[in-house]
Amino acid sequence: MEQHANILKYKHLGIYTQNENVVYMHEDCHVCISEGFEALTRIRISYATHSIVASLNIINSDMLLPNEIGLSDAAAKKLNVSENETLYVSHLEPIESLSHVRAKIYNQKLDYSAFNEIITDIVEGDYSNIHLSAFITACAGDRLDIDEISDLTKAMIASGKQMNWDKEIVVDKHCIGGLPGNRTTPLIVAIVAAYGLTMPKTSSRAITSPAGTADTMEVMTNVALSLEEIKAVVEKESGCIVWGGTAQLSPADDMLIKIEKALDIDSEGQLIASVLSKKAAAGSTHVVIDIPVGETAKVRSTEMAQKLKNHMETVGNAVGLNVKVVITDGTQPVGRGIGPTLEAIDILKVLKNEADAPKDLVERALFLAGELMELSGKVEKGKGRRTAQKALESGKAYEKFIAICKAQGRFSKPVLAPYKIEIRAENSGVLERIDNRKIAKLAKLSGAPQSKSAGILLNIHLEDIIKENQLLYTIYAESNGELNYAMEYKNNHNDIITII
Amino acid sequence: MEQHANILKYKHLGIYTQNENVVYMHEDCHVCISEGFEALTRIRISYATHSIVASLNIINSDMLLPNEIGLSDAAAKKLNVSENETLYVSHLEPIESLSHVRAKIYNQKLDYSAFNEIITDIVEGDYSNIHLSAFITACAGDRLDIDEISDLTKAMIASGKQMNWDKEIVVDKHCIGGLPGNRTTPLIVAIVAAYGLTMPKTSSRAITSPAGTADTMEVMTNVALSLEEIKAVVEKESGCIVWGGTAQLSPADDMLIKIEKALDIDSEGQLIASVLSKKAAAGSTHVVIDIPVGETAKVRSTEMAQKLKNHMETVGNAVGLNVKVVITDGTQPVGRGIGPTLEAIDILKVLKNEADAPKDLVERALFLAGELMELSGKVEKGKGRRTAQKALESGKAYEKFIAICKAQGRFSKPVLAPYKIEIRAENSGVLERIDNRKIAKLAKLSGAPQSKSAGILLNIHLEDIIKENQLLYTIYAESNGELNYAMEYKNNHNDIITII
Repeated sequence: MEQHANILKYKHLGIYTQNENVVYMHEDCHVCISEGFEALTRIRISYATHSIVASLNIINSDMLLPNEIGLSDAAAKKLNVSENETLYVSHLEPIESLSHVRAKIYNQKLDYSAFNEIITDIVEGDYSNIHLSAFITACAGDRLDIDEISDLTKAMIASGKQMNWDKEIVVDKHCIGGLPGNRTTPLIVAIVAAYGLTMPKTSSRAITSPAGTADTMEVMTNVALSLEEIKAVVEKESGCIVWGGTAQLSPADDMLIKIEKALDIDSEGQLIASVLSKKAAAGSTHVVIDIPVGETAKVRSTEMAQKLKNHMETVGNAVGLNVKVVITDGTQPVGRGIGPTLEAIDILKVLKNEADAPKDLVERALFLAGELMELSGKVEKGKGRRTAQKALESGKAYEKFIAICKAQGRFSKPVLAPYKIEIRAENSGVLERIDNRKIAKLAKLSGAPQSKSAGILLNIHLEDIIKENQLLYTIYAESNGELNYAMEYKNNHNDIITII
Repeated sequence: MEQHANILKYKHLGIYTQNENVVYMHEDCHVCISEGFEALTRIRISYATHSIVASLNIINSDMLLPNEIGLSDAAAKKLNVSENETLYVSHLEPIESLSHVRAKIYNQKLDYSAFNEIITDIVEGDYSNIHLSAFITACAGDRLDIDEISDLTKAMIASGKQMNWDKEIVVDKHCIGGLPGNRTTPLIVAIVAAYGLTMPKTSSRAITSPAGTADTMEVMTNVALSLEEIKAVVEKESGCIVWGGTAQLSPADDMLIKIEKALDIDSEGQLIASVLSKKAAAGSTHVVIDIPVGETAKVRSTEMAQKLKNHMETVGNAVGLNVKVVITDGTQPVGRGIGPTLEAIDILKVLKNEADAPKDLVERALFLAGELMELSGKVEKGKGRRTAQKALESGKAYEKFIAICKAQGRFSKPVLAPYKIEIRAENSGVLERIDNRKIAKLAKLSGAPQSKSAGILLNIHLEDIIKENQLLYTIYAESNGELNYAMEYKNNHNDIITII
């Protein structure tokens, strides 16, 4: 009953569970017995002024003594505790905000204060995966109306750090993913920063795709910068292209995305809140959002894209952002490379205006950079694309890109992978269809994004006239084993590329 | 790539995680590296002809060598693996039935085959808590229509073992919980079995209440019987009152109930499927279901009860059960005792027709036993209650109860707890309200059901005229500490019992 009775000595076990907080106690531990703790009970663990919530696993071997307590690496790091220090354990007080989750499960409408309580508890780590999954599910399937999406977005902005650039106009762009090789972001940053706009871009690593912008940039420069380092780069060069993971913008979003990934769902409400909360927290004022539409892209119909566009712009307005959504063609991959290194090669070709730079990637980058320039109000309507083109063709964008990379710590040239297989056409005809999902899967099996130089180099586009034995694409890998993995998948799927 | 590359040596670690399958591998393990496994990746682990799915934790201490693999106790037990034997690990194939869960999240209607695939995968252990929680949530909040509830129920029946009694009529009863002390089940089994009906009753232990029927019966007899033992008891005595946990009836239900408990939700569809699938799998033909209604009972309004009644009877019909639902008064606890031992004492007083037997408990037991007799068709309409009363008052029900207990292995008399505190009225007046939830919480804090003799002994009923200093109830506990816990709660809540 008294506090000193619930004290245990910390022992390092070395168990890595990603972000999951697990606490280990011996079955004969007096605290477990007196408090009635059982395996999987969620327990509060306090050390000095910090506390976390963790799920209990019971040890019945000599890994721990009855007066010792172990923690998963994530939990130990959050508490910053060292060997032999004492931890205090107690029952988890009821999580009041779960009543709002239950209300949502029962189809009730939530307001800002309800979302704020939920998101605050999620960021505190009080929600288990069961609770997180219920919240995600209860909000999916069009169960959030536009007010609720706005309130959820505001709550997510309030939950994390917010960046401030002391600039009137800070631009940003986002692409609702799903299109392999569509790596316009580094190009757009280089172009608009060369023009003089401020674009502090934080990007993600790949979650389910063969490369995220952060993975691709990491081939050429450092991307894991501290907030202070990011500030310095942007002050010097007007732009940056870094990994958003260290910035702690919208931390609830990082936790919710993991659950969405496990469920393989993308709920509209969470998607909008996720994208816009990160933009607002990053201090952006003007944001262009690109929605590629295609039957194997993330958004599959123009109708869905139009609805998403309306909701994005409305919620953007509600949270004080100037948002413009553009709906683009998402029927095939963009550029030639799919995978960090291969995409980095594409980017450098475009920036250096090389003759064999992928034209579709150039076109998309100029279009989006132009839209962003016009949205910012700094370039007249109708003159965006031309202004962007000037920045690119003059070489200023290339100079800016190299300067940004150097400001981020280094510029390294991309190097191709040592193993490759060329895939050639088995018959002649017209290239009818490229399955974005399957080509992405193939790139992942070849090792991307963990193996940075692995991936696919495409030689073809939709509607090309294909001759028998013509080179369609090359698979690159860093080991023979990975090359075999990819080939096995390729041999089992004859609809990755359809020629008729 | 080849199968032999994915073999690791099993080492016992002694980590108990309840039912959760966790696999431990060293960070330098060649399989993790070559397969790209990360912490929390869900992995298939095979041994001989068995295989399970488990979540990966990565060890970075000397707890394991790089060529060793550890398992949580639950996972090791399911695989039946011993020290130093070799296990084969592989990527988890995609869980196809999750597409049905996603369809439900997006408000589509599921059919029997969809539910069957989902429930089969759940029983196999392929669903993580994230998936289970999404399935529960997507089915809650009236998102299942009556066809879907029937199909879910059928899928749950098909997923487990089914008992067969070679009898035309097998009766059963169930109470939609929430009423402390309402322990009619042992009385009904004794009465109807004494009359000659077959009633093989499997009951649950407490999940969130101070006692389940299995907890109460365990005070007097053994309840953890094997299927063979249950069969022998029922063959000899026509009835039994055992714990349902060993019977493996509707195993999916046991897993889903844990998630519902963590979310603290009771979805109507899951509730109906849970109750009726267990009854059908237990081989019942005629089932009476009692729904007590009261503002602090599980079902709070007659309207909700009526809807539940209609749905229960319709689904019962669809799965081939004769179901009668009775709606009863749920405004206050039933009997005097709340907690396993105290309820056992009530039961014996009723069976022995003692003068101070709680009249409300007698009345409820006779009413429900009578309804069950009439539903079975063995007793004429209108004569059920009288027939039940005869079995009770003649002493035949008592004899039958003792015989059943002895057939289950022993009959032990309940013994009161050593520590107690009497709670007396602070003012005079009329007893206006008893909060079922708070009185249950008080009994739990005193130690019930883990401490079998802990709990509450009530001296009062609604509308009693109360004098100042009159004894209201006694709190029993097995330790002074637990008594203090309960008193602390009691002192902080002055609305457990309301006298005005």
